[in-house]
Amino acid sequence: MHDESEVAVLRYGHRPGRDDRMTTHVGLTARALGADRVIFPDNASQSEETVEDITGRFGGQFAVERTAALDGTISEWEGVIVHLTMYGERIQDVEAEVRRAHRDEPVLVVVGGEKVPFEVYEAADWNVGVTNQPHSEVAGLAVFLDRLFEGRELEQEWPDADRRVLPQASGKRVVDADAFGDGDDPGGTDADGGANDVTE
Amino acid sequence: MHDESEVAVLRYGHRPGRDDRMTTHVGLTARALGADRVIFPDNASQSEETVEDITGRFGGQFAVERTAALDGTISEWEGVIVHLTMYGERIQDVEAEVRRAHRDEPVLVVVGGEKVPFEVYEAADWNVGVTNQPHSEVAGLAVFLDRLFEGRELEQEWPDADRRVLPQASGKRVVDADAFGDGDDPGGTDADGGANDVTE
Repeated sequence: MHDESEVAVLRYGHRPGRDDRMTTHVGLTARALGADRVIFPDNASQSEETVEDITGRFGGQFAVERTAALDGTISEWEGVIVHLTMYGERIQDVEAEVRRAHRDEPVLVVVGGEKVPFEVYEAADWNVGVTNQPHSEVAGLAVFLDRLFEGRELEQEWPDADRRVLPQASGKRVVDADAFGDGDDPGGTDADGGANDVTE
Repeated sequence: MHDESEVAVLRYGHRPGRDDRMTTHVGLTARALGADRVIFPDNASQSEETVEDITGRFGGQFAVERTAALDGTISEWEGVIVHLTMYGERIQDVEAEVRRAHRDEPVLVVVGGEKVPFEVYEAADWNVGVTNQPHSEVAGLAVFLDRLFEGRELEQEWPDADRRVLPQASGKRVVDADAFGDGDDPGGTDADGGANDVTE
């Protein structure tokens, strides 16, 4: 996030078709909740396209990359590495340390897809569990980022957006970014979906 | 969560096959992050099965239900209703009010799947956006619950578990719940997956 050390999210593993939606959600969650960049496996081109499309329309400096070298990304990372896993230390026990490290150093957040090899556990500075219960890597990433940034990510601005959603007590309000602030509603109510999921 | 007003999560809409994994993740996230109950649409029997299976193995009082009456569940709810949507008010602006309401009343959290009809926006006491950016209903639910409970959900106990994951700085440690505390590791390292996602 602007003026802070970089936070990048590495999606470790992806099965095309089966994982498309989960991988896309990892990328969109990374973007919405303050990460600077997501790195997908080489075979996740469809997720890359969706996240790039959303960034183009809704703005922000977020970068999407793909790599054939997941392990290389980890071993060559210049900064600290957090691996999110239900087997890890409790987030409430280590989050302050991670926040401290992030003041000075880039953070790579590894989010597992298929089985994660033991080497990733070893390479991580912290293996972190958002609960030690099985649930969702997207949920784990969301809570981790919200706690890492202590809510600052919710105050982000989104430069270069084509459209903006204006918070409403009821209903939907989407405006062209140019018209922002002058009461026009050229975007109408045709924005995507009702929930935060636009990957339908 | 124990000794507090009930929190139930209603998954509004489900397309069998296509949405199975997302709906399952909504249910598992609800369970792991302190909700008491998830209500799925009638056609989400596979997600119901998975969440029940996880609850059987990993414990807790969590309930899973299905209903053919999504709208009826909303209109007959005795308590307050929060609808999570990227079009809603900013969570940081309304979360204190919602927490205050939850001290006295049950909370129904509506999580959209397919397009959510306008009536749901109207029926909700709060339409809440975890950012006004498109991302993931699972991520939105996770951040909402973590903020609703202010982290208390991470200290939950899980009665009647068959197995427990013990937090580790590195590697995996799973024990039979009976052996909890005595150093045995009969579960070995065969627990599910590397990330929090066990719905592979």
